[in-house]
Amino acid sequence: MIKAGIIGATGYAGQELIRLLYHHKSVEMVYLSSHSYEGQNLSDVYPNFTGIFDTKLVNMNADQMADDCDVIFFALPHGLAANQISEKLLNKVKIIDLGADFRLKDKEVYESWYKVKHPTPQFIEEAVYGLCELNREEIKKARIVANPGCYTTCSITSIAPLAGSNLIDLESIIIDAKSGVSGAGRSLSPGTHYPEANDSFKAYGVGSHRHTPEIEQELSIIAGKDIVLSFTPHLVPMNRGILTTAYASLTTDVNSEKLVNLYKNYYKNDKFIRIYSDGSLPETRFVRNSNYIDIGIKTDPRTNRVIIVGTIDNLIKGAAGQAVQNMNIMFDQREDEGINALPTVL
Amino acid sequence: MIKAGIIGATGYAGQELIRLLYHHKSVEMVYLSSHSYEGQNLSDVYPNFTGIFDTKLVNMNADQMADDCDVIFFALPHGLAANQISEKLLNKVKIIDLGADFRLKDKEVYESWYKVKHPTPQFIEEAVYGLCELNREEIKKARIVANPGCYTTCSITSIAPLAGSNLIDLESIIIDAKSGVSGAGRSLSPGTHYPEANDSFKAYGVGSHRHTPEIEQELSIIAGKDIVLSFTPHLVPMNRGILTTAYASLTTDVNSEKLVNLYKNYYKNDKFIRIYSDGSLPETRFVRNSNYIDIGIKTDPRTNRVIIVGTIDNLIKGAAGQAVQNMNIMFDQREDEGINALPTVL
Amino acid sequence: MIKAGIIGATGYAGQELIRLLYHHKSVEMVYLSSHSYEGQNLSDVYPNFTGIFDTKLVNMNADQMADDCDVIFFALPHGLAANQISEKLLNKVKIIDLGADFRLKDKEVYESWYKVKHPTPQFIEEAVYGLCELNREEIKKARIVANPGCYTTCSITSIAPLAGSNLIDLESIIIDAKSGVSGAGRSLSPGTHYPEANDSFKAYGVGSHRHTPEIEQELSIIAGKDIVLSFTPHLVPMNRGILTTAYASLTTDVNSEKLVNLYKNYYKNDKFIRIYSDGSLPETRFVRNSNYIDIGIKTDPRTNRVIIVGTIDNLIKGAAGQAVQNMNIMFDQREDEGINALPTVL
Amino acid sequence: MIKAGIIGATGYAGQELIRLLYHHKSVEMVYLSSHSYEGQNLSDVYPNFTGIFDTKLVNMNADQMADDCDVIFFALPHGLAANQISEKLLNKVKIIDLGADFRLKDKEVYESWYKVKHPTPQFIEEAVYGLCELNREEIKKARIVANPGCYTTCSITSIAPLAGSNLIDLESIIIDAKSGVSGAGRSLSPGTHYPEANDSFKAYGVGSHRHTPEIEQELSIIAGKDIVLSFTPHLVPMNRGILTTAYASLTTDVNSEKLVNLYKNYYKNDKFIRIYSDGSLPETRFVRNSNYIDIGIKTDPRTNRVIIVGTIDNLIKGAAGQAVQNMNIMFDQREDEGINALPTVL
Repeated sequence: MIKAGIIGATGYAGQELIRLLYHHKSVEMVYLSSHSYEGQNLSDVYPNFTGIFDTKLVNMNADQMADDCDVIFFALPHGLAANQISEKLLNKVKIIDLGADFRLKDKEVYESWYKVKHPTPQFIEEAVYGLCELNREEIKKARIVANPGCYTTCSITSIAPLAGSNLIDLESIIIDAKSGVSGAGRSLSPGTHYPEANDSFKAYGVGSHRHTPEIEQELSIIAGKDIVLSFTPHLVPMNRGILTTAYASLTTDVNSEKLVNLYKNYYKNDKFIRIYSDGSLPETRFVRNSNYIDIGIKTDPRTNRVIIVGTIDNLIKGAAGQAVQNMNIMFDQREDEGINALPTVL
Repeated sequence: MIKAGIIGATGYAGQELIRLLYHHKSVEMVYLSSHSYEGQNLSDVYPNFTGIFDTKLVNMNADQMADDCDVIFFALPHGLAANQISEKLLNKVKIIDLGADFRLKDKEVYESWYKVKHPTPQFIEEAVYGLCELNREEIKKARIVANPGCYTTCSITSIAPLAGSNLIDLESIIIDAKSGVSGAGRSLSPGTHYPEANDSFKAYGVGSHRHTPEIEQELSIIAGKDIVLSFTPHLVPMNRGILTTAYASLTTDVNSEKLVNLYKNYYKNDKFIRIYSDGSLPETRFVRNSNYIDIGIKTDPRTNRVIIVGTIDNLIKGAAGQAVQNMNIMFDQREDEGINALPTVL
Repeated sequence: MIKAGIIGATGYAGQELIRLLYHHKSVEMVYLSSHSYEGQNLSDVYPNFTGIFDTKLVNMNADQMADDCDVIFFALPHGLAANQISEKLLNKVKIIDLGADFRLKDKEVYESWYKVKHPTPQFIEEAVYGLCELNREEIKKARIVANPGCYTTCSITSIAPLAGSNLIDLESIIIDAKSGVSGAGRSLSPGTHYPEANDSFKAYGVGSHRHTPEIEQELSIIAGKDIVLSFTPHLVPMNRGILTTAYASLTTDVNSEKLVNLYKNYYKNDKFIRIYSDGSLPETRFVRNSNYIDIGIKTDPRTNRVIIVGTIDNLIKGAAGQAVQNMNIMFDQREDEGINALPTVL
Repeated sequence: MIKAGIIGATGYAGQELIRLLYHHKSVEMVYLSSHSYEGQNLSDVYPNFTGIFDTKLVNMNADQMADDCDVIFFALPHGLAANQISEKLLNKVKIIDLGADFRLKDKEVYESWYKVKHPTPQFIEEAVYGLCELNREEIKKARIVANPGCYTTCSITSIAPLAGSNLIDLESIIIDAKSGVSGAGRSLSPGTHYPEANDSFKAYGVGSHRHTPEIEQELSIIAGKDIVLSFTPHLVPMNRGILTTAYASLTTDVNSEKLVNLYKNYYKNDKFIRIYSDGSLPETRFVRNSNYIDIGIKTDPRTNRVIIVGTIDNLIKGAAGQAVQNMNIMFDQREDEGINALPTVL
């Protein structure tokens, strides 16, 4: 059994992780740590766990857990995981960080977008960016995996097959992204107060959302040159789901079918990525409550652009599910163990 | 492996059943029958199944399936299952009917509420009412199980512990029920057109909903005398979930705590029924996507009434999940096999 | 022109009141007071007012406004209006209190349900309960009008015609009420955080909601004897609207049609109350954004009960609209001036 | 009084038009025509009108109405208005067509995108494209006004100030548009069935939506050269509202503030267009139930693009409200008469 600790257990990503790990055949959760709810039962915060899995919440840091754990998941706001990392810790346990601290390879970029000083920059280089389908081999050997952001997972996988292809103008990429409200987390705010989010739609963080440099970093690696792109997030009145609509100018004459085949081939070994064909397009409900990424591709001969529509469940492939997938890869489990649930279309 | 056929595979209950059976360790789905989508793939109708479980839909009746199946699930509108039942069929396969044809033990009552003639009344008596927690022993031996309605499952289990208790006035029972829109099924109608259901709330079928006699029948059996009650359904702008608020006048001085204990004891062997204590109350999201029934009980000394709040996921414990639970009981499987998923609170 | 001041301008009831008064032909809003947003413009808090009506918010109490106002609206949490009332104030301005401080005629009942000491009980008696359709004549002469609660407006008008009729057993009344989330106001809370309210349904305040004594008080006055009833509120995932389903046992043989006529006659002079006939029932969207109360009545011969379904827009007839209606009555305006907008069905 | 007839009165645009005209001081609705509901009362279809405005629906064409009307509104699917237009008709009444038949100036373009033959192409030229803020003077004299589409109104006004400015690369325009479900109209379809639209998000009509040529046509006129652009609509789980996120590459160094000023100046005489400043952005709820267009503009120095976020209420400024505004202009009324309601933020 893999012994797991979770720090930040009562955030939305944390509780989703608990739910997934509960169904995982080879995992035992030994510590659930919550700063805010120490001493309470998990079911006091999330009554859905009542009578099924109802551990008492502790308030522990990674060092305190390390001797009893094989893996520690951090599900904390940025800045709170990095300062717990040390060589001593990494000699004892594997780390999967669902936060942003180790995603950006350039410390200056991190500090500029996140407006904080990185406390442990010495570990940035070795941390592996945990987008499983792209970095599977490095993840296997990693001590620290930086689990990608929700928007970024959907955006990067939507564009990756084209980024290194010479088929698109790399300066023309625009990603118009839409997320359900759970993506904003459990913290209360006027913008996520039900009457002000329901039956309405808005853009936010235009030109300034922190997932932008993360998307650019990974696509630049694939392209082999620096990519700068536009990324605009929007808030959708729904709980779960991200849909990204990506645009790029084609540099050559190519039709939808050819690109569909290119995508299918690119992801041919990736169970969790499904490429739509025959002009059909994904909807967020087709991946709801699952670890799948669904992608549809259309070329528009009128404008000579390609439009790629990608969807994920932001809490699963966009957070907890991908964390479990990373754990499976790191601990030599079946990659889909614990995360192979069919999407619930209703 | 249990070989299963599903007739009515593309309705909402049918597709949910497929999803659950796909994850069941001991079931092989051999036929998915759909009158409307014959010849298409399941994923043409429900793209969430794409690349995972994507059988071709056939158009077969029960007789045509019987030789290859151990169990046949009917997920059809009332009247369409009963006329497929015969002694010959029952000698070959077990039947689990998610529709209404065999729920009511009195043929006259059925014909009066459903406005159709029952085609095969000779099988009504032997059919077992498949509310698993109440009729487990009979279900084990049944050839036909009549899977309960969604409202009824929630209503009956909410009141059952009191129905035979002498603690309430049996003439005083009122059930005010609320359901998500998936309960209305996949057929299009103005009342379930998004702009006319969203951000609005209504009652319907006041005094005339067909689940009324079903609730009365089962509670009357428990009480040992005829119960007539008020049942009012309402439509909630959400996809899944039923919540019933039941009222009854107390005949004696009893407090919430005592009733909570009575309920806990009554359901002590029933994993899927959770009784809330300390004044907390269930919400539909605490059972979402799960087979659980959550029940909260409060007495009101001012009015000398007890108020019982029950919740289920209408598509799971209210339909497909209970059907799987019935199958598990009939085929000597673990009762929770394939339906033990934790609720998704988001 | 009637000069109006609003205290608590940036709560949900306050902003709705501003919106209605802006369109009122004979009102000039001279002060908008907000404790939290003093010095900001109204449009900083509610951008919908941008460029149309964009007064600067002040932080003033009633005494400071009195010399410049004909009427002051309080839209504050309970306890915060009552301590501003004085004989001196009432000699200068009329008061319409959208809060609870002067609704309950029995000081003990107020203090018991609201858990605070009433600071100015000497004004309780003269305050008029501002349910316009019931107390129109007293409102005309009132110095203080206690604007009713949202649930209570819908509940009382649904039952009033029967309360004094001898047709129902007054001990049998049960009101099962459902409200949109704006009823919980603008204060942030986990239960109104979008992901925890959306696509879910719950009961709350079972047996303990503060609107209970208010409903009982008014119905008791009509009945001429003390009524004790059950009231259970629920939260619906929608913004606006209240629907109440009321149950009572009939003491005599009477059909729906006869009761519909009784209701139509009872409210024959009340433009804003619409009685449904021919078995049709109201939905919250049929009164959305309007001051109407829609009521449907059905008798159930099986149980010998009557079921009354009432609906209002909680922010209009349940708060700001009724406040304007009260002002119109007090200042001898057309009763529907400023509040005669047609409901928006979409 | 302006005497008005409405053909297609029971569609979503039609009923909204009735609601607006009911509150218009100078309009009398003399005929409400509905093919589907002839002989019924308006309130049988839309109970919100009960007891307020409850005309009997007729089934009449424009010729039958012409002698009694000053203006006829068509609110019909494309193809059904054009064949009712004749010189004889236009000599009697003004026509405002909410459908698509006279929006596109090039008959071939119309026939190519709409797949029908235009029955009365001789009137295309004289028809005025009724985007009030752009074509006010022509509208004053028009006999036929082609009321713009919902997406197009929002898209064109978002980009118009830049289209003729030399500040953007006209080949770089991308419009990513999102609409509430009422935009799909009252016809039932699986994609607008509540359980399949709720809590989900999707793109549709990628590269092929019929509003594309309409947007291109109007922006090309402003630019003085042919514009070809990308337009991608999406469906948002909400009733009302459109938000468009438009992208264009800047050809020069310009900041947000300068563009905000350019927009404010461009629309300085247009009450219904509000330009946001100081980095704030519109949300659909800020224009809900109103005729306003709200626009926010941001430049992104990293990518050298401008992002323009526009919002309207699709049923009002996107359909019925603009139709009333056109009527006001044609009949020399105050331009905002009947459509000056404040947005409802909740």
